[in-house]
Amino acid sequence: MDHNFKNIEFMAHTNKDILELFEAALAQMQLPEEPKKLYDPIIYSMSGGGKRLRPVLLLTVNEAFGGDLNEAMHAALAVEIFHNFTLLHDDIMDNADVRRGKPSVYAKWGENIAILSGDAMLITAYKHLAQVSPASLPRVMQIFDDMALEVCEGQQYDMDFEGEKKVSVVDYMLMIERKTSALLSGSAMIGATMAQAQEEDIKKIYRFATELGLAFQLQDDVLDSYGDEALGKKIGGDILEGKQTFLMVQAMSRATEQQREVLRTTHLSSVLSDEQKIATIKALYDELEVKHASEQQIELRFERALSVLDTLSISDEKIQPLREFARNLMGRKK
Amino acid sequence: MDHNFKNIEFMAHTNKDILELFEAALAQMQLPEEPKKLYDPIIYSMSGGGKRLRPVLLLTVNEAFGGDLNEAMHAALAVEIFHNFTLLHDDIMDNADVRRGKPSVYAKWGENIAILSGDAMLITAYKHLAQVSPASLPRVMQIFDDMALEVCEGQQYDMDFEGEKKVSVVDYMLMIERKTSALLSGSAMIGATMAQAQEEDIKKIYRFATELGLAFQLQDDVLDSYGDEALGKKIGGDILEGKQTFLMVQAMSRATEQQREVLRTTHLSSVLSDEQKIATIKALYDELEVKHASEQQIELRFERALSVLDTLSISDEKIQPLREFARNLMGRKK
Repeated sequence: MDHNFKNIEFMAHTNKDILELFEAALAQMQLPEEPKKLYDPIIYSMSGGGKRLRPVLLLTVNEAFGGDLNEAMHAALAVEIFHNFTLLHDDIMDNADVRRGKPSVYAKWGENIAILSGDAMLITAYKHLAQVSPASLPRVMQIFDDMALEVCEGQQYDMDFEGEKKVSVVDYMLMIERKTSALLSGSAMIGATMAQAQEEDIKKIYRFATELGLAFQLQDDVLDSYGDEALGKKIGGDILEGKQTFLMVQAMSRATEQQREVLRTTHLSSVLSDEQKIATIKALYDELEVKHASEQQIELRFERALSVLDTLSISDEKIQPLREFARNLMGRKK
Repeated sequence: MDHNFKNIEFMAHTNKDILELFEAALAQMQLPEEPKKLYDPIIYSMSGGGKRLRPVLLLTVNEAFGGDLNEAMHAALAVEIFHNFTLLHDDIMDNADVRRGKPSVYAKWGENIAILSGDAMLITAYKHLAQVSPASLPRVMQIFDDMALEVCEGQQYDMDFEGEKKVSVVDYMLMIERKTSALLSGSAMIGATMAQAQEEDIKKIYRFATELGLAFQLQDDVLDSYGDEALGKKIGGDILEGKQTFLMVQAMSRATEQQREVLRTTHLSSVLSDEQKIATIKALYDELEVKHASEQQIELRFERALSVLDTLSISDEKIQPLREFARNLMGRKK
């Protein structure tokens, strides 16, 4: 906890470099040994892999604005620990047994330990956050607190949606802005704030990460129904769960009352096979042209994110790693 | 959240005055309206009463050392919100349907909402903590984080004890030092730190609150078996649950193997009535003289707490409200 990550050198870093520096810092993270059932699930959860998107974004933004990577690393650890805490508690709420191909903490240790070690994890995130410089701490903490509450709000709206017959496209966008974008935009703002970026730039960085987060979540929604099976991804999980997704809320907004009934009830059928359910819903999606509309929306958000970057007050060379981050996130070459 | 509690006047306050000031500040606490299922449980939980021991201690210590009550109020709200957060999540883990005579959040809204609104509550505690002066924030946050983790550790040890055949007296004391004392000693230290008390005094205040917390918890354990039924308290709850208490761990340490078997298994009996179970265990407690030994231990801890106060560097007049707090907590006239 007291490490200063002195081994980090100062130079322009690619996303991959940043990720390696982050993983090195994470590997140095120390937790108490006892009680084992409190701390082992935290170590298990943090070593479960993942793309470390939020800390990489935080550090990349921080470096772009000339920040001190060593100091920003504490905040980077805080956002990654926070993110994994949300997954840990989400898995209890969703009764999810598997996380990143391994048993979830909930499945491995049971519900009570998952609740309590999750709580300890959230506090541990704050323990790392508290290590940023005293000058940055008040503002960084304010951004972090607001971000963390937004993520909880997003999760609550998502749970609320499960019981609702029809969710509007606007409400859906507001939900994913909290549930997915908030953590990216908060991380980016913390990175910029710690580098003492200008207020205008901090606002722009917030817009960049918000739009990018929306594009990322919408793409995730589309890929769940239209992804490449060849990549090993199981297609149609959202459809079978009857989940609200961007495809579904758009389809509902465009459908006739009769089509809506089909959209609502197909996943509940005891007659249809999984394949038939997926085919039924996707046929309706095609008919209502929601895939195309979604792709347009993704493109719009992604382009907005990139164009905000062009207006930053820093040199184009420094902006480059942020463009790289955006393209990597969306799995694009350019 | 942005209130400065400007209406608070500066003067020597009794515990009762402090409590009133705290309740007034708490009544001004603002939370977002939506999503209702996230924030309503927090409001419900915070308005459930309770003795507000931790914020009153924090504020009383703060005033004794000449602190600014307005500023300390933010931290006082943080510790009280944190305390109620722990109760909220504990009730899920214990499947407890009732809290302070009302349905628990867990019983009223269900488990998922209890988990998530508890998380939001913990973050809300930090949001209030973040409002203390930038100069105090780093140290206050460090104390708060350590205190919060200790409470989680105490809860984990308590859960671990449930599955154990015999818990040593030492391990039991270490558990309640975390589960009960840590929140009192952390609150007291925050109050002293924010008033810029001398390091020596901060350490003493820590010892005072730690010993007092232990005395309080041990007394609570004794009262559960030997309290006054006339006061409306149901006697023997811990015995019927087979809970590890100070009486039980002491009895186990003094018992013969045969007596231990009785201590371990009586609450599980399908033959004995509740009254018979309680009578059986209390007869053993009497035989092993654990009530008397517990009372001695309570007295020792309480006296230690009071005698630490005498060594503080501040005037006796300023120490007086702290003595008052200690006596009130233990339900004593002097």
